[in-house]
Amino acid sequence: MVTTTDFRNGMALLTGAVNIITTAGPAGQAGFTASAVCSVTDQPPTLLVCVNRSAYSHGLLLANRKLCVNVLGSHQQHLSALFADRNVSMEQRFGGTPWSILHTGSPALDGALANFDGEVVHTHEVGTHTVFYAELRQVRLAEAPHSGLAYFDRCYHPVERPH
Amino acid sequence: MVTTTDFRNGMALLTGAVNIITTAGPAGQAGFTASAVCSVTDQPPTLLVCVNRSAYSHGLLLANRKLCVNVLGSHQQHLSALFADRNVSMEQRFGGTPWSILHTGSPALDGALANFDGEVVHTHEVGTHTVFYAELRQVRLAEAPHSGLAYFDRCYHPVERPH
Repeated sequence: MVTTTDFRNGMALLTGAVNIITTAGPAGQAGFTASAVCSVTDQPPTLLVCVNRSAYSHGLLLANRKLCVNVLGSHQQHLSALFADRNVSMEQRFGGTPWSILHTGSPALDGALANFDGEVVHTHEVGTHTVFYAELRQVRLAEAPHSGLAYFDRCYHPVERPH
Repeated sequence: MVTTTDFRNGMALLTGAVNIITTAGPAGQAGFTASAVCSVTDQPPTLLVCVNRSAYSHGLLLANRKLCVNVLGSHQQHLSALFADRNVSMEQRFGGTPWSILHTGSPALDGALANFDGEVVHTHEVGTHTVFYAELRQVRLAEAPHSGLAYFDRCYHPVERPH
């Protein structure tokens, strides 16, 4: 028997990247912070994102069936809290920083370490969450070698590039 | 169009934990290094692991339907290469370090930051890989506050605990 507390305390020790997931389409535009992003396969290039079904953005992802995963660098740590705050409107979230449009039309954060832009090709529901599988249509890498941003033991940590 | 090189260069910038996945059961015992591990939901406590279908351990995971995710600390970095080397036998991999048995019988690495021991409840094939969903039966945390181990930009990085 694994309690919610056991699970969360354990998962806090699984070092992860910090990402902003965006979507745009007929259902509207949204963006939120997520660490539950995982590479699946490079044939065809696919990643997955786990999203709580109670999240505002969940319905938009389901309807638009497009998303962009924006991997934050350490210089973008402030965006993590901004895009995780339910009291901050979508206008406020997107208003303060520059974005580009890649293949799917979902906002791609300028200066992110990487933008993974793709179409949702499969979803799978597990308990409170939906797993979205996205087949990538475009990948853009930052030109500057920014440091990475890791979340570990409930804190942010910069991760330097090797020299 | 996203090439394999684009995809891999992008994914190299997605900071991740370093884990050893183990399994034991009628099909035998195996262990391998994996970064593609992701929290799914805490109701019921579930994680997922993406495994290449060409990997030796893939068939054992499918047959045993049990696994343990062992999250490496920075003091265990040497185990990452050991468990990723196809020329190292399972006997050699498991021989040099102490293990425990938790609920499912899959080897749980002593001194890992966390051991997530669970049963495979669902699988999903995507291209070259299978995604294994495991419902957790036991979670064990390290007693000592070891530093974390991150993989970013194709190098290992220790991640200190906050003070």
